[in-house]
Amino acid sequence: MKAAIVLEGSIDDVKGFSTASTYVGLKRKRKDLALIVSHRPTTAAGVFTTNRVKAAPVVVTMEHFARGRARAIVANSGGANACTGERGLADARRMAGLAAELLHLKPEQVGVASTGIIGHPLPMDLIEPGIVEMAAKIHSGDTGGAAEAIMTTDSVPKQVLVEITHRKKTFRIGGIAKGSGMIHPNMATMLGFLATDCGVPPPLLRRALRAAVQDTFNMITVDGDTSTNDMVLVLANGASGLRVEDEDDRLYDKLRMGLQLACEELAKKIAADGEGASKLLEVEVRRAPSEKDAKLAARAIAGSNLVKAAAYGQDPNWGRVIGALGYSGADFDPERVDLYFGNGLGDVKVVQDGTGIRRRDDKLLEQVLASKELRILVDLKRGKKAAKAWGCDLTEGYVKENAMYTT
Amino acid sequence: MKAAIVLEGSIDDVKGFSTASTYVGLKRKRKDLALIVSHRPTTAAGVFTTNRVKAAPVVVTMEHFARGRARAIVANSGGANACTGERGLADARRMAGLAAELLHLKPEQVGVASTGIIGHPLPMDLIEPGIVEMAAKIHSGDTGGAAEAIMTTDSVPKQVLVEITHRKKTFRIGGIAKGSGMIHPNMATMLGFLATDCGVPPPLLRRALRAAVQDTFNMITVDGDTSTNDMVLVLANGASGLRVEDEDDRLYDKLRMGLQLACEELAKKIAADGEGASKLLEVEVRRAPSEKDAKLAARAIAGSNLVKAAAYGQDPNWGRVIGALGYSGADFDPERVDLYFGNGLGDVKVVQDGTGIRRRDDKLLEQVLASKELRILVDLKRGKKAAKAWGCDLTEGYVKENAMYTT
Repeated sequence: MKAAIVLEGSIDDVKGFSTASTYVGLKRKRKDLALIVSHRPTTAAGVFTTNRVKAAPVVVTMEHFARGRARAIVANSGGANACTGERGLADARRMAGLAAELLHLKPEQVGVASTGIIGHPLPMDLIEPGIVEMAAKIHSGDTGGAAEAIMTTDSVPKQVLVEITHRKKTFRIGGIAKGSGMIHPNMATMLGFLATDCGVPPPLLRRALRAAVQDTFNMITVDGDTSTNDMVLVLANGASGLRVEDEDDRLYDKLRMGLQLACEELAKKIAADGEGASKLLEVEVRRAPSEKDAKLAARAIAGSNLVKAAAYGQDPNWGRVIGALGYSGADFDPERVDLYFGNGLGDVKVVQDGTGIRRRDDKLLEQVLASKELRILVDLKRGKKAAKAWGCDLTEGYVKENAMYTT
Repeated sequence: MKAAIVLEGSIDDVKGFSTASTYVGLKRKRKDLALIVSHRPTTAAGVFTTNRVKAAPVVVTMEHFARGRARAIVANSGGANACTGERGLADARRMAGLAAELLHLKPEQVGVASTGIIGHPLPMDLIEPGIVEMAAKIHSGDTGGAAEAIMTTDSVPKQVLVEITHRKKTFRIGGIAKGSGMIHPNMATMLGFLATDCGVPPPLLRRALRAAVQDTFNMITVDGDTSTNDMVLVLANGASGLRVEDEDDRLYDKLRMGLQLACEELAKKIAADGEGASKLLEVEVRRAPSEKDAKLAARAIAGSNLVKAAAYGQDPNWGRVIGALGYSGADFDPERVDLYFGNGLGDVKVVQDGTGIRRRDDKLLEQVLASKELRILVDLKRGKKAAKAWGCDLTEGYVKENAMYTT
């Protein structure tokens, strides 16, 4: 029996959590406000943007999550509340404060997240009644819709539910995320909210979240290229009856694995749904001298506009992969590199020891390049470390969406 | 009287230099081989790609230019001669060797450059007769066409001629370049060849070239994001009768200024002709705490896909500029930043102290955004250093070209 399985579902399927959502007119037609609540005390952790410009909700949520005891998250799409000065900070605090009041929590127990266009104050006259309405929905059991409510240019809601077995008991991790913009190499806002009914002390929860984000959400972006509003938050309420005691606990390993799995599923959904994207790109770098080299290389390739455009054109232009590898900063020996294009079923070798080996009219290669999930495998033959990065192809649709976003 | 003026012309208009070109069938319809020769002894310097994967001609030319005495350059488009192993190195040496033989030079006096698709050996059976033909043209005076012959997806040839006055005498600097690909953020091959009839010792020539490249060609690319084939070469033959003696010489300052001007003209032509581009983007960062901060910021903004797509859409989305500034790694204070959009005639302030101040329906702003040369001015108000970077907008045309380049 596998210890972890991926189920249909989301945060509402995790014991002791509810979400609510509503439409108040911040964006055109879809829901634009979301609320996530734990009905019992929780521990909490967050990972926040490294962008020097931090949106007001990021500043406020970093404060509120510092003690590791937050119990609720209120989020809006249709406005980033970034570069909005003092008024923006007051608005973010008001969103947390109002939600807290209605849920009988302290303001510091509520995280706030916003996504949308930078530079315009939030219309609080629309948002405040929306928060009141969502709190009423939580109380009446009219739940769900949070994944949809945080979408911006995402084409589909992104959610995940993972169930992990431990000593004949189970706990769950549910999550929602939004991505889009292009993620590579200029991230639009990435939001991820996770909830688990496993219990875990705040320092361990924080460490597990950071490790999971490092290998998943951070591998669909380029280090440092983060938007003003990015955050990944997790709440853990212990409602499953399972509780991590310390870091040597076997249960802690399972929690970490579960968080990693949930984050990877969400990250891949974000990558596959990049603006205008027609396919998911997975780059695996093997046998690198260090994990840092493997990650640098994988990210540079997955983030290369020329590689992405070639993927769209189903073009076996491996020279672009080698070019990106060359400028990635990773340590490798050009004369040892092997390169494969694959589709999950098989990998076709196109470069052996740094030199091309396949003809461009190869039928199998054509098939691989036509698949909806293109895999690029780079074998550096220089060490033992590996890393994966995810991206999407670059299409005319991407340019169209981004040329016309605000106007 | 201005000390430096930009004239119509190119390398053939610099005393003691000739170029020749021909078509041998490496690319579809245009000339694909170029030769640049000085008829007198020269000093020489080069700046080469920092990509870990270096094409065979880069390796060979680095060797040949090490002593600073090269006199000729042979270049082809239609094939990069990169990732071609031992055979590629032998082919690059053969190109230099054959040109040297025909021009009565030593092989080490000839530089070699290639540009085109990575991974295919050069068809030497076509290239060798082409070199013979070009050498004959040089001898018979049938010169010109080098700028066209090094083009790949460039839409126009790029050349420059600068004339500098010093104590009632003049010297000239002529140059040609090719860019395209997108330059940001994944550089396709950038080649630049310069020739001057000023005399200058190799160490000073090298220093002047490096400084000029740093502020010009390197500001249309992102540090480290260089292709396998990039190089900028300069030959100086002293035919003007002017000769730099040492670094305190006023003439040396003029040579440096002239090289900088010639390189900036070529760099801007490359930026404006990015694949599918419809406009030139100039980013100026002012009052930064250090030159490094100013350059980091200017490059990040000019290289941001989201900023580039907004420029194409004539969209006043300054939030994307602030976002790129934030992840650039530059030191600045978000609450002090002022931001302007301009068109060379005037600049319209849209952000004051980190907060938006203009309405999006502004007519003047609309005009500015519609111009063929969009300027983004960022005033950090934190120091005294400034930098400029150049790019182009991101259009559907870029994606189309790059999806279909090899196939």
